[in-house]
Amino acid sequence: MKIIVTGGAGFLGSRVVELLLQRLDAGDPPVPFEEIVSLDLAECPVADRRVRSVVGDVASPELLEEEVTDDVVGIYHLAAVLSGGSEENFDLAMRVNVDGTRALLEAARRTGARPRVVFTSSLAVFGGDPPEVVPEEWAEQPDSTYGALKAVGELLVNEYSRRGYVDGRICRLPTISVRPGRPNSAASSFASGIVREPLNGEAAPCPVPHETRMWLSSPRAAVANLVRALEVEGELIGAWRGMNVPGISVTVGEMLEALERIGGAEARALVHDAPDQAVMDIVCSWPGEFEVQRMLELGFVRDRNVDRLIRQYVEDFAPGAGRPAEEHDDAAPAAREA
Amino acid sequence: MKIIVTGGAGFLGSRVVELLLQRLDAGDPPVPFEEIVSLDLAECPVADRRVRSVVGDVASPELLEEEVTDDVVGIYHLAAVLSGGSEENFDLAMRVNVDGTRALLEAARRTGARPRVVFTSSLAVFGGDPPEVVPEEWAEQPDSTYGALKAVGELLVNEYSRRGYVDGRICRLPTISVRPGRPNSAASSFASGIVREPLNGEAAPCPVPHETRMWLSSPRAAVANLVRALEVEGELIGAWRGMNVPGISVTVGEMLEALERIGGAEARALVHDAPDQAVMDIVCSWPGEFEVQRMLELGFVRDRNVDRLIRQYVEDFAPGAGRPAEEHDDAAPAAREA
Ligand SMILES: NC(=O)c1ccc[n+]([C@@H]2O[C@H](COP(=O)([O-])OP(=O)(O)OC[C@H]3O[C@@H](n4cnc5c(N)ncnc54)[C@H](O)[C@@H]3O)[C@@H](O)[C@H]2O)c1
Ligand SMILES: NC(=O)c1ccc[n+]([C@@H]2O[C@H](COP(=O)([O-])OP(=O)(O)OC[C@H]3O[C@@H](n4cnc5c(N)ncnc54)[C@H](O)[C@@H]3O)[C@@H](O)[C@H]2O)c1
Repeated sequence: MKIIVTGGAGFLGSRVVELLLQRLDAGDPPVPFEEIVSLDLAECPVADRRVRSVVGDVASPELLEEEVTDDVVGIYHLAAVLSGGSEENFDLAMRVNVDGTRALLEAARRTGARPRVVFTSSLAVFGGDPPEVVPEEWAEQPDSTYGALKAVGELLVNEYSRRGYVDGRICRLPTISVRPGRPNSAASSFASGIVREPLNGEAAPCPVPHETRMWLSSPRAAVANLVRALEVEGELIGAWRGMNVPGISVTVGEMLEALERIGGAEARALVHDAPDQAVMDIVCSWPGEFEVQRMLELGFVRDRNVDRLIRQYVEDFAPGAGRPAEEHDDAAPAAREA
Repeated sequence: MKIIVTGGAGFLGSRVVELLLQRLDAGDPPVPFEEIVSLDLAECPVADRRVRSVVGDVASPELLEEEVTDDVVGIYHLAAVLSGGSEENFDLAMRVNVDGTRALLEAARRTGARPRVVFTSSLAVFGGDPPEVVPEEWAEQPDSTYGALKAVGELLVNEYSRRGYVDGRICRLPTISVRPGRPNSAASSFASGIVREPLNGEAAPCPVPHETRMWLSSPRAAVANLVRALEVEGELIGAWRGMNVPGISVTVGEMLEALERIGGAEARALVHDAPDQAVMDIVCSWPGEFEVQRMLELGFVRDRNVDRLIRQYVEDFAPGAGRPAEEHDDAAPAAREA
């Protein structure tokens, strides 16, 4: 029995592969499995005999036919063209994000095994003028190509689930922060850059106003939630398979204050305002907070606060950067903390 | 300059063709045009030298390439597999309602002329447990194949508009009642049948509880609104191109009372309850009323009341059936009445 991870070479995908293996080693896999197949344009970086890397295009029906067999118990569909790339190359985004998703669902359907399918969506499916705290039944009126095509993906995953072809779990992830590495094509890339670069002693532009409210999740919390999404019983999710994955709601200004607390005034001073209309047009239409009580009850987790989000980056990716945590920071671990 | 009407042989399509020609004859076309091309599996029944009927499949890219040329000023996209048919044949619905819509949008994009595109969606895009009066920003969580694929169509039309490839106008039509003719595969077919059959002296089953609230439009009001949708300036619609086309909100019980007022107790007695779970599952998840003030301000119309809706059927399709209208029925014509 195997789990397929499209985008298994990517940032979240490779971490999901790692956590799945850890859970298997601990004798507590979210679903029983023996093998993980990464399906990505690149090789999965996780070196483990239980991981097989298939390098290829997720929109290729032949490849899917070969790999998506009736011993597949779970599928993570993470391969996608991200927000900046989708805005730049509409046709590529249609091919990968729409045709790829559909081809994968068709392949899953043909197995007859009704595998669990975890699909990563994004808060970019929302647009227009969302309320301060977005309820579960707020309209998706995306104003970006990325958001529009993720919304199409949600509808397909949900409909294939409703018809009993797959058992879908749609995870609308918050913006992931703090991501390690270099800036990428995502419009929200700055949400990591304004913390990561200064902690590494580099300057970072801030393209949006400081009062911009962001909905954030650390990589650890996001990966834990993706594994939880595979594990949870489908009936508990309800008829509509869309889920607003928990995050924390902070303004860019609050992020910069936390950066100063952790990295000092020198770090804070490395961030300069450089308004970028293209980024604002996309990011400022995203909601800054969601109703997530039901999700927390389903066993999904969230970060405790923005300081912890930044300290997690320091611990995992930049040991030595930043000041030591103060006492109160680690007091009384929250029950649902990642 | 031409207008393309996919589904031009259908119920709404052929009536849109007729009204477009009437408006042209009156020197007041919604957009300037000389020719109408009907694109349908069947021949358009409107006999007029300005109408050209192309018989073919809307999901055929070759056909679209041939017909969707840069002199196209407007496109009505009405060809679709309806609700009952979509639930029965998922693959056909995907091919026609998704692939067909996408192929048409691609063809329109390739002209470079940014034509106006009127897309007919449906209240079947909603599902779950909608509030009594649905606001403009209520989530689409369809629980039927028809609704899911119409929702996908909406997202595509909107995104092609946002990118400037077409100038889209998405009309979420109410359930059309009273339709002439025979019952069809639509789950809402009874909303016409329980009035039409009794007025024609035939028995009719009522598959849903009498308290079921329906959102209805006469054919005349719906066709007037589709022509208005082509006419209205795109900027007035707003960034999100979805529109809840006005209707009237009545319960099935109120429809039956109106039937009795107009057709007499004999007509009313011809309707018998015959609960049908499949129909209830689909129809009872549809909202019964929408916020439409903004749409009325944009020049869209609605029927005055359920008696008028039924009388319109009698006048247009069954002269002689029913009792003469009472005085109060026609008093003070409403400004925005169809
Ligand atoms: N990171 C975030 O902030 C965030 C937020 C919301 C949603 N998501 C979604 O989560 C998923 C994973 O995101 P990530 O941050 O790990 O991105 P990533 O770019 O690190 O990983 C995406 C992977 O998909 C692969 N890929 C792209 N096109 C492919 C194709 N045609 N065939 C096969 N593989 C292909 C890439 O090679 C890459 O390894 C994506 O679907 C993304 O849209 C991410
Ligand atoms: N009538 C309603 O109550 C209602 C309500 C909401 C939305 N709508 C929508 O309005 C549109 C028109 O509805 P209608 O009531 O006139 O339906 P209809 O069935 O009378 O007309 C649909 C037409 O589409 C054509 N068609 C179907 N598949 C085709 C294909 N592959 N290629 C070319 N033509 C094809 C059919 O031949 C038919 O003439 C549809 O999109 C429908 O979903 C109707």
